[in-house]
Amino acid sequence: MASSSSLHLSQAVLARAVHGFNPSSDRLSLSTSTLSLPSFSTLRSHSSSTSSPYISRRRVASVRASVVETLDKTTEVSLVEKSINTIRFLSIDAVEKANSGHPGLPMGCAPMGHILYDEVMRYNPKNPAWFNRDRFVLSAGHGCMLQYALLHLAGYDSVLEEDLKSFRQWGSRTPGHPENFETFGIEVTTGPLGQGIANAVGLALAEKHLAARFNKPDSEIVDHYTYVILGDGCQMEGISNEAASLAGHWGLGKLIAFYDDNHISIDGDTEIAFTESVDKRFEGLGWHVIWVKNGNTGYDEIRAAIKEAKTVKDKPTLIKVTTTIGYGSPNKSNSYSVHGSALGAKEVDATRKNLGWPYEPFHVPEDVKKHWSRHTPEGAALEAEWNAKFAEYEKKYKEEATELKYIISGEFPAGWEKALPTYTPEIPADATRNLSQQNLNALVKVLPGLIGGSADLASSNMTLLKSFGDFQKDTPEERNVRFGVREHGMGAICNGIALHSPGFIPYCATFFVFTDYMRAAIRISALSEARVIYVMTHDSIGLGEDGPTHQPIEHLASFRAMPNILMLRPADGNETAGSYKVAVVNRKRPSIIALSRQKLPNLAGTSIEGVEKGGYTISDNSSGNKPDVILIGTGSELEIAAAAAEDLRKEGKAVRVVSFVSWELFEDQSDEYKESVLPDAVTARVSIEAATTFGWGKIVGSKGKAIGIDRFGASAPAGKIYKEFGITKEAVIAAAKELS
Amino acid sequence: MASSSSLHLSQAVLARAVHGFNPSSDRLSLSTSTLSLPSFSTLRSHSSSTSSPYISRRRVASVRASVVETLDKTTEVSLVEKSINTIRFLSIDAVEKANSGHPGLPMGCAPMGHILYDEVMRYNPKNPAWFNRDRFVLSAGHGCMLQYALLHLAGYDSVLEEDLKSFRQWGSRTPGHPENFETFGIEVTTGPLGQGIANAVGLALAEKHLAARFNKPDSEIVDHYTYVILGDGCQMEGISNEAASLAGHWGLGKLIAFYDDNHISIDGDTEIAFTESVDKRFEGLGWHVIWVKNGNTGYDEIRAAIKEAKTVKDKPTLIKVTTTIGYGSPNKSNSYSVHGSALGAKEVDATRKNLGWPYEPFHVPEDVKKHWSRHTPEGAALEAEWNAKFAEYEKKYKEEATELKYIISGEFPAGWEKALPTYTPEIPADATRNLSQQNLNALVKVLPGLIGGSADLASSNMTLLKSFGDFQKDTPEERNVRFGVREHGMGAICNGIALHSPGFIPYCATFFVFTDYMRAAIRISALSEARVIYVMTHDSIGLGEDGPTHQPIEHLASFRAMPNILMLRPADGNETAGSYKVAVVNRKRPSIIALSRQKLPNLAGTSIEGVEKGGYTISDNSSGNKPDVILIGTGSELEIAAAAAEDLRKEGKAVRVVSFVSWELFEDQSDEYKESVLPDAVTARVSIEAATTFGWGKIVGSKGKAIGIDRFGASAPAGKIYKEFGITKEAVIAAAKELS
Repeated sequence: MASSSSLHLSQAVLARAVHGFNPSSDRLSLSTSTLSLPSFSTLRSHSSSTSSPYISRRRVASVRASVVETLDKTTEVSLVEKSINTIRFLSIDAVEKANSGHPGLPMGCAPMGHILYDEVMRYNPKNPAWFNRDRFVLSAGHGCMLQYALLHLAGYDSVLEEDLKSFRQWGSRTPGHPENFETFGIEVTTGPLGQGIANAVGLALAEKHLAARFNKPDSEIVDHYTYVILGDGCQMEGISNEAASLAGHWGLGKLIAFYDDNHISIDGDTEIAFTESVDKRFEGLGWHVIWVKNGNTGYDEIRAAIKEAKTVKDKPTLIKVTTTIGYGSPNKSNSYSVHGSALGAKEVDATRKNLGWPYEPFHVPEDVKKHWSRHTPEGAALEAEWNAKFAEYEKKYKEEATELKYIISGEFPAGWEKALPTYTPEIPADATRNLSQQNLNALVKVLPGLIGGSADLASSNMTLLKSFGDFQKDTPEERNVRFGVREHGMGAICNGIALHSPGFIPYCATFFVFTDYMRAAIRISALSEARVIYVMTHDSIGLGEDGPTHQPIEHLASFRAMPNILMLRPADGNETAGSYKVAVVNRKRPSIIALSRQKLPNLAGTSIEGVEKGGYTISDNSSGNKPDVILIGTGSELEIAAAAAEDLRKEGKAVRVVSFVSWELFEDQSDEYKESVLPDAVTARVSIEAATTFGWGKIVGSKGKAIGIDRFGASAPAGKIYKEFGITKEAVIAAAKELS
Repeated sequence: MASSSSLHLSQAVLARAVHGFNPSSDRLSLSTSTLSLPSFSTLRSHSSSTSSPYISRRRVASVRASVVETLDKTTEVSLVEKSINTIRFLSIDAVEKANSGHPGLPMGCAPMGHILYDEVMRYNPKNPAWFNRDRFVLSAGHGCMLQYALLHLAGYDSVLEEDLKSFRQWGSRTPGHPENFETFGIEVTTGPLGQGIANAVGLALAEKHLAARFNKPDSEIVDHYTYVILGDGCQMEGISNEAASLAGHWGLGKLIAFYDDNHISIDGDTEIAFTESVDKRFEGLGWHVIWVKNGNTGYDEIRAAIKEAKTVKDKPTLIKVTTTIGYGSPNKSNSYSVHGSALGAKEVDATRKNLGWPYEPFHVPEDVKKHWSRHTPEGAALEAEWNAKFAEYEKKYKEEATELKYIISGEFPAGWEKALPTYTPEIPADATRNLSQQNLNALVKVLPGLIGGSADLASSNMTLLKSFGDFQKDTPEERNVRFGVREHGMGAICNGIALHSPGFIPYCATFFVFTDYMRAAIRISALSEARVIYVMTHDSIGLGEDGPTHQPIEHLASFRAMPNILMLRPADGNETAGSYKVAVVNRKRPSIIALSRQKLPNLAGTSIEGVEKGGYTISDNSSGNKPDVILIGTGSELEIAAAAAEDLRKEGKAVRVVSFVSWELFEDQSDEYKESVLPDAVTARVSIEAATTFGWGKIVGSKGKAIGIDRFGASAPAGKIYKEFGITKEAVIAAAKELS
């Protein structure tokens, strides 16, 4: 990490935290790498001095002790209740003002929310990116006012009173669901149900992995919990079962999930669709299960459950908390009507009366404010204490500290990209899935945050890291993750890993067609700017005999249509390496790398630099930027385009061959560059791709021709299908002749 | 149902079953409605006479008795074993010849396969479409050679010896995974893991529903079981948990699932990723669970388990059958190497020796052949018996019989389409989700097979059928299905319902963006030609404050890119009705209807007939098919295009407004029609759609302009977002002026 940049980065982070930013401007403008890098500045200052910028060292120790013992400390019950009602009314008032939102969950979950943020969790509100913070995920994201209210009380500058008042409005920092890219203090983006609990499994995996890898007998430098609140909706979603099964399998003891058991979903009582025994299911999944029967006022029950959960170190814990949705609303509580609509002025009044709340909207009583105000110094102290600890650690374990810093900061080790393999046409043909494995194994040696695996297809996706063992319950320091046949959970877990620390680079793999199983998680990678690398093999009819259920047709187009994701389809060795380079350096964009099952030759003219431009010329015998025809291919069909060009040139044609490996990267290039590759004047353009032609119209233009497959695939040897479907050199030549 | 067509239909079905068909020709050519309608011809003949075309009435009774008692009858153990080994070697030989496929499962599951098809299931091999047959689903679809071998032995004409020999080859009837549209006797399309068990839940739901609706104390006219084999992979997928939770909730007592517990997945021992207690989970889900410890040779254990399962009438049963994958292979059994590759000549020999199998490849020993041959007359007898029963039923319960016949045959009641509502511009603006509900409630009165519901969003998706109650465990005759928050399971369950009987028209609903959760099931609707209607509301940024996690952007494009599905985006009342008409009449294509949350006016010029053409002119002041500019809109943006046109016309422009409600239907029109709507010569084209512009390049052409949203959405009131994103009349006018 470049020392010169650290203070600058820190200031950027703090500046953003304090002053906020304007989400109405293009959010992608936030994607510069500097903005989100957590800072080492305080850490750094402790390398040379043990004093904290916020607080004396003496104070650190005493504050730490009080934090640890909070669970046993009796804050006056009346104040606790007042704080809980503050959370409820901030939520009620914000939803009311917006006339939109979900008051029911915050009203029911305010007690567990209060206990978590006020008594249990360790965080620094003035540096939400502090590495060793406890993570909290609201999987039931519609209840985001709960989290905004808590962040507000806890002293996060990202949620000021004005933010609460602009809940769900254009440009606000308090959008309709929790979004990590809009609001500091929000760890992941939730709302689509079930994603959050799976993200939380990823966060807990990340912690367990780093702890095993970096902690020393004399220094537990990685040590935090992951808390999550999920509701009935999350429980019904299959993804939550996938993730929970893995959490149990991995024994993620520091994952503590609160299941808001309120018996109400949008359609009414959960009796109409959800009568399973969740407890029994979670026991079957290997979790420790606790039931808090009175989640509304049983504060000590909640506290005791958390204490118990912390004693169980080899299993994740599910605390089923039975609550009343919309608690406090005399006429709407315990009904679906309080789930997703404002209470209405009349019911807000009735609720104020019912809970004895005399205050104006958005008012935080002084004693509550005062009570919560301690989190600012305490949080600073926690971070300072950790920074001091890290300074000690760094002295003793220089190598480990360096690695860990890369993971914490997201900086790259100098020269890492030199590890990428390069290829020449003399190197024998190989499947890009195999070339992908060469890249993964090269990169894992230089990128400390690279970790991942496959959904039970490691030997088909070629994703095993040969120098590492399996990440398992008892070997969490390893870096091959075995996700089982759980694509959706896999994607969301990788989102959690990616958003745990900026230097994590999770990758995950399955057959390309099965992105359909995990598309909701992939979309959240894109939306939440989580750099996950999706290694997607068997990327076309080229997989052969498994047939149409396994042959992607529409998938390339479907991801090219998705915002903020890179859809890469490399043609050979150099392009595979280029794809990995692009995937790594795009800190705020996930990438999908589509890879072949079948062997592909290393082509002349391909390059890493070419891939970085998205589309580029690999061969050309024209002059003056005026080829007779341009042949455009991607992935396994670039070879066909190149072969067709060779034949056409023999007949005297001036032919350019363009590799179109990533449409998004090409779109990012200058108009001049684009014109140099696809000159406007040349309308004779033929594309070939073993996939739907949907979308190619724009590239080949009204007078061009797109060769592709606009039907489902078939079961037969690959060569046979290519021929029958007309994905051939002959078809390209015929089209080129027709057009030029 | 038209009586004149029934014999013809029967012949068509039988002809196809006997002579097969050529899947190498465009599969969609099979989509004519007549080909797949099950027949009432034998039923019809029994209306006037009790004699069977195959067998005397006396024989019927005796055969029936023997079928019922098969489970208790002792077929010689040696013959059972020989039959089981026949299944194993047919599978081994076919995979070996194809040098591709999955021998492991068929070798391990041959015993349960034999018992099911030879001893337990009731079917008619010469009429695979017989309505009251037991349904079998191989959820672990990669093991399809098991099913092909069983169909072959059972006498299905769809899998002859030549078909086994052309396993996984171009144009064969034995593709790499089971595909209902390629092979008679295959109920649903499986392979993508977890889909099959959810399809089976749909099949069992269909049976329970029809039985409750049509059975009479004196006539159990609907009465069959649904069997399914699923593996570890299916169990890990979240979709299976969703579907199993619903099966337990609904108490689907006639669903019997065999869990092939072989401890091996592709990546090795399931220990590496799958250590949960499946038994306990299923008990939590409300299933009856039985463990067969010796699935390899414990035939009586398997038989006893099935008997026990049948006694449990209020719960589905999971029979966990512990097997050895690749049983019989001395060197490869119990390892992942036998899962997905041919054994190789040497190991095939070793397996032949090990199991004492002296025969040539593909040989079925005479005694085995003879033993299985009884299924042809027995099956005919079963059907004949049922036909006789139905004839009696029809006499007594004319109305019910008529309804049931529509469901069985897929014919429509005459004049059904008159139920579709129509609208005029005077009718106040309304959200298309509300108009959708008007259509559903109108159609349910005339379409006996319409049944469906929402994934816990009924009151948002507006899908409740007002004249019906909820389909529940104790009220299965009702037609509102409550799927809970289980989109993926919902889609796959609907596939099962659709493929149970040709007259079922299942619909299911969620927010459009959450098609991401169920895309794998939707793709299988499209591939397997299952007419499911996907009612997808909240179809754009127009949903407002819920923000980008809930706002679809790329979804329209992603489905337009998918083969064999209709993506419909109606603009108002008439177009919503037209969308439903199209969705109903397209028997072999699923439809997605994207609907607005916000109110939309009823526009002049829209029509049901227009929708049937996919794209059509709703207003035009040009002459000679030469407008100055063509404005193209869909759904909620057609209103904007229409308003822009009005303004432009005031300025003297000749403007055509085109509704582009379904790209697929427009693509199906003649070139002449297309030219009449989008004349080649008119390059000034502006499209507007509150979604990605991806794909529009082909429609608006190189010189046109697509107005859309190529980024994620935002959280704010809908009107504000439209304005900020430039989805406005002003933008259309500006673009139109620039181009014309």
